[in-house]
Amino acid sequence: MAKDVNPPRGMRDFLPQEKALRDHVLNQILQTYKRYGFQSIETPALEDLERLTSGQGGDNEKLAFRVLKRGEELDRVLPSASDNPDSLADLGLRYDLTVPLTRYYATNHAKLPKVFKAVQTGPVWRAERPQKGRYRQFIQCDIDIIGDKSIAAEAELLIASLAALDEIGLSKARIRINHRELLARNILSLGVAVADSASAMITIDKLDKIAIDGVAKELDEKFGQAVAAKAQAWLSGIDASEVPAELKELFDLVGEAAPGRLVYDPTLVRGMGYYTGSIFEIEHPESGSSIGGGGRYDGMVGRWLGTDVPAVGISIGFERAVDLVGAFGQNEPGLVLVYEAEKLAHALKLQTLAIAEGWVTRLEQRPKNLKLLLETMASQGFTHFSLIDGSSGFQDLVIKVLD
Amino acid sequence: MAKDVNPPRGMRDFLPQEKALRDHVLNQILQTYKRYGFQSIETPALEDLERLTSGQGGDNEKLAFRVLKRGEELDRVLPSASDNPDSLADLGLRYDLTVPLTRYYATNHAKLPKVFKAVQTGPVWRAERPQKGRYRQFIQCDIDIIGDKSIAAEAELLIASLAALDEIGLSKARIRINHRELLARNILSLGVAVADSASAMITIDKLDKIAIDGVAKELDEKFGQAVAAKAQAWLSGIDASEVPAELKELFDLVGEAAPGRLVYDPTLVRGMGYYTGSIFEIEHPESGSSIGGGGRYDGMVGRWLGTDVPAVGISIGFERAVDLVGAFGQNEPGLVLVYEAEKLAHALKLQTLAIAEGWVTRLEQRPKNLKLLLETMASQGFTHFSLIDGSSGFQDLVIKVLD
Repeated sequence: MAKDVNPPRGMRDFLPQEKALRDHVLNQILQTYKRYGFQSIETPALEDLERLTSGQGGDNEKLAFRVLKRGEELDRVLPSASDNPDSLADLGLRYDLTVPLTRYYATNHAKLPKVFKAVQTGPVWRAERPQKGRYRQFIQCDIDIIGDKSIAAEAELLIASLAALDEIGLSKARIRINHRELLARNILSLGVAVADSASAMITIDKLDKIAIDGVAKELDEKFGQAVAAKAQAWLSGIDASEVPAELKELFDLVGEAAPGRLVYDPTLVRGMGYYTGSIFEIEHPESGSSIGGGGRYDGMVGRWLGTDVPAVGISIGFERAVDLVGAFGQNEPGLVLVYEAEKLAHALKLQTLAIAEGWVTRLEQRPKNLKLLLETMASQGFTHFSLIDGSSGFQDLVIKVLD
Repeated sequence: MAKDVNPPRGMRDFLPQEKALRDHVLNQILQTYKRYGFQSIETPALEDLERLTSGQGGDNEKLAFRVLKRGEELDRVLPSASDNPDSLADLGLRYDLTVPLTRYYATNHAKLPKVFKAVQTGPVWRAERPQKGRYRQFIQCDIDIIGDKSIAAEAELLIASLAALDEIGLSKARIRINHRELLARNILSLGVAVADSASAMITIDKLDKIAIDGVAKELDEKFGQAVAAKAQAWLSGIDASEVPAELKELFDLVGEAAPGRLVYDPTLVRGMGYYTGSIFEIEHPESGSSIGGGGRYDGMVGRWLGTDVPAVGISIGFERAVDLVGAFGQNEPGLVLVYEAEKLAHALKLQTLAIAEGWVTRLEQRPKNLKLLLETMASQGFTHFSLIDGSSGFQDLVIKVLD
């Protein structure tokens, strides 16, 4: 009896061709970051739930998959489960790579370089309502520099990230930049009170979706007509080519290595509350939404460590990036050796020889329908085949192109 | 205030040097299997709990981390949580790669080659009591051939696995082999009833730990003196060089490609109930316990699919293998460019040039204690450095060895 055999809702299997593309792209990003001196690290998929829900993860905290306690610890909390459901879980699946990174740094900082440059690639999990292009398990690629408060950290992050995007063929990607202090100053100059500036930011963050008039309307509702009018004037008069003094050096440094790839955006907000300085968002003309982002978060690492540690990071949204990359340009050469059943021993020998010659080599017993087999192998990315019956050594093989 | 900042119990952070070694070894195994025509695939870390606990996972099923239901579904089951704790969870973290593979095959078989040769590498999770060398998250490397009932599948699996072990330097590894039908026949010939043979297997499986006398004693308690005496005679008289007819062809095929690497072991049991034919266990003289194993499991894939599908697989225990591999033989060359703060722009340019020359290149602002920085960089695996103050281009750089 056949049963329902789908992966869990919002999660995906990857077929061999998809997996090959994803691994190839992920590896290109990782190797580029490594060339820029970033060190690859890994943390567990699970973290203590208390840490994952301590306020650093913003709205994502609510989306954490929570892991049920086990054994006696579960038995102890079961009777009061209805009144206190939070007590049922002790671990959670990470919903981003930033919270685990700050925990990792606090755990291991004594063994790490003073300026720690980390690259992490790996899955994260979010219990979101599944929808097109949103998954409950997806890959993130993050780099972070911890322990450097200078602009050098921003410059290195952005140059390396643009190189990684170039490497995977996304050379049209650009990075929009703002600075949280500039943004705060601009908002205060609209007549918004300091206590209301976070609320005003939330509205301005909707600019992409509701345009200038929509933002003005919402600000009017929140803070009155005077603020709305000033905002309308500000947003209409923005000239992105006027890079402010605070960002000038960074634009010059990155512009030298990657000309024309940074864009000043005084309305860029980035949702997370923990950003303290520069903020970034990666955009690509063929993507409707951002394909990554980041910023400086000088206050966050210190929370676990008890001292202030400057930090800045950027994340490439792998799932969106890989969708833009599209189909693999070229398959690696791969050879299918087709053998008659009674020639297995000879086929195994030839496979060893073919591998030694550098071929990816797959054995297939000759079926009745040879044509179907060869079509299937071509669809799986194999490029060549040989019918090995009769051949005595690798040099005798007649190797043909699969098409 | 510093807080407890350890990873969850039984789980690990990997420092950059550890991560580099692990990725290197894992990649060597994966690339070897790919050269033998195995296709890399990926399934989600989570599966429906019902599937993970349907009897295919043996004792591991009890060790699955279970994920709490969410939202209304959780609210609905909370009131009866005490009476029915199993209702609280709907998903589980995979505890092996075999159960997900059989589900994957059932989901995707129409898009896969008729003979499907899969390689999977990835983390699995088990809520075991942590102890030395046992972790709650660890990596498995599995290959499986689905859809081939012939001995060719076993031969390919074993030859490719021995090549992978060779590739990571474990050329002393050998693979012990038995066949479930041979084992069953041997057990019946001791006078054990068919209904008792599974129980007798459990006892014989303890041979490594309790030796022949211990096994005889336990069989005596279970089945009486006659069985115990026959078992003692059988176990004492075993000649592993007498490969039985059922395994002769496989020994010949594998022996041609990898001489002397297979060992017939008539007492090999392998715990899992799903094995139906050949069974394997990988051993290495420097490891006290097995570093992998597998076997033929012709009945398992069919359970989801509703038809019988032959399958055989083998798993390299990555954590034990990587421990045997030990420290990285050689670091890849890596260059540290040390710059004075005011020369950042120039340093960034030189980094681009050094990367174009093929160097892994890391920038470091010159600290007061240069010696300490260089020591740290050497300990992190960097091999060269250059003080770039004064240099005008890459060719002018004085590159020195870090030691």
